[in-house]
Amino acid sequence: MERKVAVVGVGQSAFSRSCGISIRELCFEAFKEAMDGLNLSPKEIDASIVCSAPEYDKQRTPSGLIAEYLGLTPKPTFLVETICASSTTGVGVAFSFIKAGIKDVVAVIGFQKMSELTSAEAQERMGRGGDIMWESPFGIMMPAQYAMYARAHMKQYGTTEEQLAKVREKNSKYGALNPKAVFRKEVTVEDVLKSRVIASPLKLLDCCANADGASCIILASEEKAKKITDTPVWLVGWGSASDTMTLANRTLLTGLTCAIEAAKDAYKMAGVEPKDIDVAEVHDCFTIAEIMAYENLGFCKPGEGGKLIEEGQTYVGGKIPVNADGGLLSKGHPIGATGGSQVRTIVHQLRGEAHKIHPSIQVQGAETGLVHNVGGVGLYANVLIFRR
Amino acid sequence: MERKVAVVGVGQSAFSRSCGISIRELCFEAFKEAMDGLNLSPKEIDASIVCSAPEYDKQRTPSGLIAEYLGLTPKPTFLVETICASSTTGVGVAFSFIKAGIKDVVAVIGFQKMSELTSAEAQERMGRGGDIMWESPFGIMMPAQYAMYARAHMKQYGTTEEQLAKVREKNSKYGALNPKAVFRKEVTVEDVLKSRVIASPLKLLDCCANADGASCIILASEEKAKKITDTPVWLVGWGSASDTMTLANRTLLTGLTCAIEAAKDAYKMAGVEPKDIDVAEVHDCFTIAEIMAYENLGFCKPGEGGKLIEEGQTYVGGKIPVNADGGLLSKGHPIGATGGSQVRTIVHQLRGEAHKIHPSIQVQGAETGLVHNVGGVGLYANVLIFRR
Repeated sequence: MERKVAVVGVGQSAFSRSCGISIRELCFEAFKEAMDGLNLSPKEIDASIVCSAPEYDKQRTPSGLIAEYLGLTPKPTFLVETICASSTTGVGVAFSFIKAGIKDVVAVIGFQKMSELTSAEAQERMGRGGDIMWESPFGIMMPAQYAMYARAHMKQYGTTEEQLAKVREKNSKYGALNPKAVFRKEVTVEDVLKSRVIASPLKLLDCCANADGASCIILASEEKAKKITDTPVWLVGWGSASDTMTLANRTLLTGLTCAIEAAKDAYKMAGVEPKDIDVAEVHDCFTIAEIMAYENLGFCKPGEGGKLIEEGQTYVGGKIPVNADGGLLSKGHPIGATGGSQVRTIVHQLRGEAHKIHPSIQVQGAETGLVHNVGGVGLYANVLIFRR
Repeated sequence: MERKVAVVGVGQSAFSRSCGISIRELCFEAFKEAMDGLNLSPKEIDASIVCSAPEYDKQRTPSGLIAEYLGLTPKPTFLVETICASSTTGVGVAFSFIKAGIKDVVAVIGFQKMSELTSAEAQERMGRGGDIMWESPFGIMMPAQYAMYARAHMKQYGTTEEQLAKVREKNSKYGALNPKAVFRKEVTVEDVLKSRVIASPLKLLDCCANADGASCIILASEEKAKKITDTPVWLVGWGSASDTMTLANRTLLTGLTCAIEAAKDAYKMAGVEPKDIDVAEVHDCFTIAEIMAYENLGFCKPGEGGKLIEEGQTYVGGKIPVNADGGLLSKGHPIGATGGSQVRTIVHQLRGEAHKIHPSIQVQGAETGLVHNVGGVGLYANVLIFRR
């Protein structure tokens, strides 16, 4: 018998540039929100999965520390990492545990405290996310890599800098309404175009920022879910894929192969198509990343992502609302916490609770939602599909 | 329908103090041995799980790099970490993927290249595996922590330094026959007692050593396993548990609570009892750890571990042969690779292939085998049970 898997609780800390608290306390903030209102005690959680990119932490092997602090000892706990996609990988592993009948209730806790590092340290470690033998020693860094994708996209499809900037304009509109976002100021296409160049064609406001933050997603089997909450949201599809770490070995530079593969598997498992998705959270670490996501997820054809944002189709009220919580561009990007924050937003949307944050961000009647979370420069991707 | 899960391939690199090759090449050595003789191409592997304690690596997010090098892209890959127990956590996650029907064939690759760090760097990072706010700044390190357990065990049960030393004598006998072990010299109880004190009562030869190495375990569903190999070994039980990171919060100091809990769950899932185990690999990072493992796994009563080794019951031919490959004490301990190496030995034993390494290490007619793998000072534990 197929076991169904539900999300029963979602939580996140405030995302900030520098939280000033310990990682255990940061994770507790997210855990507390996720547990709020549930008929569930920490002792009833069968396993915890901690998600972070550990080279940014001073505490080694944080899962043991966090599980202890949250009262989850002696149940199993471990760390899962796919850099920026870590917490959706964690959700996928939790999904498997429950589907396999090995565990009934699993907590997935993602976090990152980037403020413990200087900017130079963070950059150096980020560079090590590329192949340290053949590529990163030659200086290619994250913004430059995404800038290459942007250039290729502009060259092949005529995508414009204004279209990129429009992504930030949209996301800043929603970010301004999100009390847990780092950046809560609306910016215009003009503001983006006038901001300083980071790696042409990407400018400062085309890029998301490092942040501190934590997220928590609690999943349960159907039987348990019905006891724990009245508002379960069903996780019905998970697709995951990777690409070569070495950019020189990539076959596609106008989209992310791993996201295309992950989406294909997730749609197949869920038995739905792109047109069935009512609301989505996509990994907009750079504005170009959101435009490629539209295409890689099948919300439009390859090359038509620029037009989709230009026409306003990804605003709430449009054909497919994307990042109605402000996205990474507004919320900030605490690496291991990001995917969990995306899941939280989609769960709020499917529960019809997003209107509590602001009426203008609730996608009315949303039944099917999607999360697209990417690790590195298209090195890893997870696509998750949820139904209410 | 319950899906059965088999181990179809096992491999490991030579373990060494300094391998002098890149991590990708090190992992390839293990992968190649695991794939040898299988009716399986890398393209048929549905997912890979890379296991390492990442703070010891210069390469960040190694799973993407290794998956690419082994030809496993674009299938999903991610990192799993429970320090020294990482690769058995990886095997557990792979088991879940297959049991859930999400994947059919999964490769688990564990590695560590400790030689990239100076001894001072390695020690500093190891210290960070304790609570860096409340404990490790005060200087308590790994050998001292296990020494505390040894002292408590000696005080409560009368365990002697000679009994501890006897564990090393036994394991060195088998290590001398293992072509992939770091230490291949037999040592006596007297040698151990005469070696310099590290943290009393533990002396140099009571301690395992850092090493470089990789391991690879390939798992498959029953249907696939029968096509891939004629000698599947069935993974029938997995138990996993944690304990508090803060030693001050531990309730037991004469055994590892997490190992007791993990064993209970593994026996239950497998439907077997301690007396049914024909051969075992246990986590002997220090000699005291092997004695506690005997007790925590139920091979003898609490407090009787010293007597069990003194009577020679854990030699091949004894009541329950343990670490017939030399254990961590002889093989060396490349953190992320260790659990996979233990699984490889048990699979060799159950296939009846251990005699190829040396006739005196094959446990005749072994049908049920056990792996006990611990992370940190009893912070995490996995127990796996296999049947031929």
